[in-house]
Amino acid sequence: MTRPEWNVMLASCPSRTSLARIANKWTAMIVIALEGKRLRFGEIRVAVDGISGKVLSETLRQLERDGIVARTAYDEMPPRVEYELTPLGTTLYEPLSALGRWAEQHIEAVEDARFAYDVREHSAVL
Amino acid sequence: MTRPEWNVMLASCPSRTSLARIANKWTAMIVIALEGKRLRFGEIRVAVDGISGKVLSETLRQLERDGIVARTAYDEMPPRVEYELTPLGTTLYEPLSALGRWAEQHIEAVEDARFAYDVREHSAVL
Repeated sequence: MTRPEWNVMLASCPSRTSLARIANKWTAMIVIALEGKRLRFGEIRVAVDGISGKVLSETLRQLERDGIVARTAYDEMPPRVEYELTPLGTTLYEPLSALGRWAEQHIEAVEDARFAYDVREHSAVL
Repeated sequence: MTRPEWNVMLASCPSRTSLARIANKWTAMIVIALEGKRLRFGEIRVAVDGISGKVLSETLRQLERDGIVARTAYDEMPPRVEYELTPLGTTLYEPLSALGRWAEQHIEAVEDARFAYDVREHSAVL
């Protein structure tokens, strides 16, 4: 149930902070990487090619705080820490993987549009 | 059809730049605001509460370049410019509005998780 007063379009609505967290490329890729898996930090970093250690660490902390990712630290030597989606986080997989599929399916149309735009802007300058 | 080699998880894949553009809170809100409508700059700015003129202007330009938003300038005095979704942009409404709905539907669970996390972290410090 959504209370009618929750509205992401309002800057003052708490749901806006949640939208900002989930409508994010790193969140999308981390959720896609963790779907159905428990991974260590280094494994997520390999799956999400190009993410810096600092951004991954900060994003995982925020996703844990928002209840999307669960972190389990095993009392072993050397210490082992694993990350997985919570049940709440699992519900994000479908909409976020839909964005990933959109990007892959439409990249040729997007690149054609970029080329046409750049030619048009370039001609306008001449 | 998706060519198997398009993969947003690879930093070098062109589709990654497209994911970065669409997995973005401002893109999500602009697409939601424009669905089924033609709006002027000032009207979008009202609909997307809290966006700065600079961010809206830059995001609209990038969305136009990617073929997601179409900009029409009418040869009138005073000049009139309207924005609308392209057919390609319209296909983004469903996944992006799903993210907005997720944020609204789950904000209470997210806020509970944040509270529990903050209490836990605070206790750990004591």
